[in-house]
Amino acid sequence: MNPGLIIYTLSDSVGNTAINVAKSALAQFPSHKVPIKNFPFIKDDQELLAILTRAKDREAMVIYNFAKLDHVSLVESFQEEHDLFAFNLLTPLTEYLADRIGHAPSQEAGANHQLNQAYFDRINAMEFAVQYDDGQDPNGFLQADIILLGVSRTSKTPLSIYLANEGFKVANLPVMPESTIPNQIYQVDPRKIIGLTNSKDLLLAIRKERMRAYGLDDNMLYSTQERIEAELDFANQLYQDLGCFTINVSNKSIEETTAIIKDYLSQEE
Amino acid sequence: MNPGLIIYTLSDSVGNTAINVAKSALAQFPSHKVPIKNFPFIKDDQELLAILTRAKDREAMVIYNFAKLDHVSLVESFQEEHDLFAFNLLTPLTEYLADRIGHAPSQEAGANHQLNQAYFDRINAMEFAVQYDDGQDPNGFLQADIILLGVSRTSKTPLSIYLANEGFKVANLPVMPESTIPNQIYQVDPRKIIGLTNSKDLLLAIRKERMRAYGLDDNMLYSTQERIEAELDFANQLYQDLGCFTINVSNKSIEETTAIIKDYLSQEE
Repeated sequence: MNPGLIIYTLSDSVGNTAINVAKSALAQFPSHKVPIKNFPFIKDDQELLAILTRAKDREAMVIYNFAKLDHVSLVESFQEEHDLFAFNLLTPLTEYLADRIGHAPSQEAGANHQLNQAYFDRINAMEFAVQYDDGQDPNGFLQADIILLGVSRTSKTPLSIYLANEGFKVANLPVMPESTIPNQIYQVDPRKIIGLTNSKDLLLAIRKERMRAYGLDDNMLYSTQERIEAELDFANQLYQDLGCFTINVSNKSIEETTAIIKDYLSQEE
Repeated sequence: MNPGLIIYTLSDSVGNTAINVAKSALAQFPSHKVPIKNFPFIKDDQELLAILTRAKDREAMVIYNFAKLDHVSLVESFQEEHDLFAFNLLTPLTEYLADRIGHAPSQEAGANHQLNQAYFDRINAMEFAVQYDDGQDPNGFLQADIILLGVSRTSKTPLSIYLANEGFKVANLPVMPESTIPNQIYQVDPRKIIGLTNSKDLLLAIRKERMRAYGLDDNMLYSTQERIEAELDFANQLYQDLGCFTINVSNKSIEETTAIIKDYLSQEE
């Protein structure tokens, strides 16, 4: 391995799309650490040329996402004269779209982050998720698009935030045998409710770890096992009574659970 | 415009990378609504072939991100026989990386969402952001990587969450002339503090709008103007006393402000 391998992401906006693509490619090489250096908000030819020259000297791998077609042309003509790997993320797609739609692309940088209605809805949804996290105010359940119920360690908070970033207003509630389930939960359309569960083994491993950390001995294990079964039974009975969709989140990333929920909601429509 | 134009995103994982690239391309055509239909978790050839056939019949534009090279080969051989636009997001990059690194890609689907340390750090950072939002507990300031101070309407909460998604532990505090600034703010390294400001005109427009909505008359405008000036003066004086970095967020998207903060922090290193 070339010890100096580095990825440069170039953009006339913030560069998130190119960074995500770079991370997706690097994830295929888990035992290699390749740094990503982002060059956002590139404005003019001079700046771009300086970065390309630096990339060539550094033998960087370049991924670029330019709204301005002049910038794309500059990269391409630079590549004709110099040896540089540079992957064009946008133009193959916008050219095809322009052809199908019958309109030229706007070439407006950062068009993906316009302060439009969808943007403000997303921001409001995030504030909603924080406000109605952890059952803080049961009135949130009546206004929510999605209500997450969950036993412990089901990542309710980050999941609420990921769904908020997709524009959904989400409220969540921890579910334990001691919980009083607010009336509002029984008043909403059960198709809005998602019941999150976890595997018994995973919960047991976590509590065992915690007992060890607190210096407690293993005699408590039997009662812990009973406790976990009681928690899961209580939750499963509640989800059945409500008739809601359930997901076992053990070994699923937040991204995967988010995708499953979106898929479920789109089927409901 | 073809009224039926649709983008299909295909992936053997959740498909977020392909969806983001599709959105980035569509943002160049703001007056056209083109739906995106995501096909996540594609597992076998039969499923993939069915989706490709549907895409061809529907004349869909395809963007695909497959870790498994067999899937890529299947798309390519399908394209040899049928007329289908399909953009390969990953393989051009992984082939170049494999060449430079001297290792084959893992071909493991969803490798970007592995439940590794970075993933758990990100999840913890999100929970931190929610817990220490809005100055709820001043002890958060001592543990935070970034402290956001902000006058009204500076999107402190969503900004905290975006930075959390990058792995930073963020606490935020609203700043008003009536606020008591917690001692902890004076105890932390000022390079961790970001002071958010807003433009006077934008704040005035928002309050005017609010007065109209409440049916109040314009006589209150002068006092409102005075009030906004007092808020901004108080904040600017505080930021100057702390010697912290400041950003005027008016007309900036959360993504842009996030990029500016990351850029500032990387210079500090």
